[in-house]
Amino acid sequence: MPFRRHAKRFIPLGACLAGLLPLLAHAADDMVWRKVDPENLVFMELHEGQVAIELNPLFAPNTVRQFRKLVQDHFYDGLSFYRVIDGFVAQGGDGSDLGELSLVPPIKAEFETALPKDAAFVPVQKNDLFAPETGFVDGFAVARDSNGKHAWLTHCPGVIAMARSDSADSSRTDFYIVIGQAPRYLDRNMNIFGRVIDGMDVVQKIHRGPVSENGIFQDETASSRIIKMVMASDMPEEKRLTGFVPDTNSKEFNNLLEGRRDRKQKFFLNKPPRVLDVCQVPMAGRVTL
Amino acid sequence: MPFRRHAKRFIPLGACLAGLLPLLAHAADDMVWRKVDPENLVFMELHEGQVAIELNPLFAPNTVRQFRKLVQDHFYDGLSFYRVIDGFVAQGGDGSDLGELSLVPPIKAEFETALPKDAAFVPVQKNDLFAPETGFVDGFAVARDSNGKHAWLTHCPGVIAMARSDSADSSRTDFYIVIGQAPRYLDRNMNIFGRVIDGMDVVQKIHRGPVSENGIFQDETASSRIIKMVMASDMPEEKRLTGFVPDTNSKEFNNLLEGRRDRKQKFFLNKPPRVLDVCQVPMAGRVTL
Repeated sequence: MPFRRHAKRFIPLGACLAGLLPLLAHAADDMVWRKVDPENLVFMELHEGQVAIELNPLFAPNTVRQFRKLVQDHFYDGLSFYRVIDGFVAQGGDGSDLGELSLVPPIKAEFETALPKDAAFVPVQKNDLFAPETGFVDGFAVARDSNGKHAWLTHCPGVIAMARSDSADSSRTDFYIVIGQAPRYLDRNMNIFGRVIDGMDVVQKIHRGPVSENGIFQDETASSRIIKMVMASDMPEEKRLTGFVPDTNSKEFNNLLEGRRDRKQKFFLNKPPRVLDVCQVPMAGRVTL
Repeated sequence: MPFRRHAKRFIPLGACLAGLLPLLAHAADDMVWRKVDPENLVFMELHEGQVAIELNPLFAPNTVRQFRKLVQDHFYDGLSFYRVIDGFVAQGGDGSDLGELSLVPPIKAEFETALPKDAAFVPVQKNDLFAPETGFVDGFAVARDSNGKHAWLTHCPGVIAMARSDSADSSRTDFYIVIGQAPRYLDRNMNIFGRVIDGMDVVQKIHRGPVSENGIFQDETASSRIIKMVMASDMPEEKRLTGFVPDTNSKEFNNLLEGRRDRKQKFFLNKPPRVLDVCQVPMAGRVTL
């Protein structure tokens, strides 16, 4: 044996603290957290675990209204992720894609919005590859056009959006969660209406469909099932879970952005360019009882 | 019940073919495939399934040489992914990060290379956010500087690289696989030496470590274990698996790139900008007996 192997491989935690860790200094302890409005907080229970989703009525008021109603009517309970493509999306719902078999109406397109004047846009990157500017609005990754008139939610990992047909106003019930490298080419084309704030590790466990079938399960029993969805606001108060997300309007969050833009750690032997991919900023939230 | 629910939710496959599918037209049937050299093909067997990795001796000759030797010496067999951070990396090895407990030497940094004149660089994007230009070299996502003198493998999802300490030449045995949005700020700072060509769905099942511990498992039994690694070239011929990857030098692959740059499908109601994220081009390979 050319290698000395140590019996207790997890003992040298001191050594473990070297290596890649400098890259992860989020200064999470310094983070200021915003409490998520229980009206905008959905818990999705899968056999794989629990996923917390924050809805965004500022960018997608109609989609959020319809999704809330579908959750409260238990529409999704028992349904599956029937099209799951690794590195792309996990799509769930009643399997008709467009909810044609449900009685809810199609949703008018909410691909972009005119931000209200009082909405705080926290700049991340000018001349991003896909947009004149990216930033955050209340914890959500967004982009805006050069005159700042229109803004839209960007297709970062963890984003939840409505599937549709070729027509703009055809979203109804079925949704997808982005599970791979941000498909930004979909920006301004879909009704993005929220993002996973906790449980992306659970989302990554959702069963992938067969590649040869473009991710569509032919065998229903092989797919991952939604046990139930529930709004935090509908949970009895003594059992109600609370969600917290990084407060992107805080000084602390801006310090985090600056620390990622300007990497000062000696680990970086080649200093990276002073740029940020808005979809690569860690934005995980926390859930507590 | 406000919704008519259909008993057989997976029947309407016709309907299933609507929706997001237009986005996925890879014209995979038209793809020209390159056979992976068995000397550069590693199979990693996990309890979660099998992962195929193509090594890249053009960009990282010394790292590949050492990794091959470690595989052939069964160094990784029985070891774990001991630091796994969802959306970032899965790191495996002997838990010392830097192989300090092994007898193999540290590897001299292979962060970038001067491409040989006969290496075909297939351009993807000028003025990418992180580099003057991105492209593909023999199936690998790369970037290069403005005079084209130096090129480097980019940190796309599925990339495998060596962990190190603050010193450039400190990689030894422990490696990480990128499992989330491309951490491109690591480009030119790490010894990237290969990429997963099949089984990223398996990699996504690797157990995540506790967030509060920066992904480091305190309980070894909770981590995912490497059953074994084997070089394709060491498999008996009658059992040898063969790997195929999209031939990025082919006309067909360039057509795929152009089809993604210039989205002609009527699905795109807002035509995306004519740009490509090199890490968002689907590059999965195939494995056959």
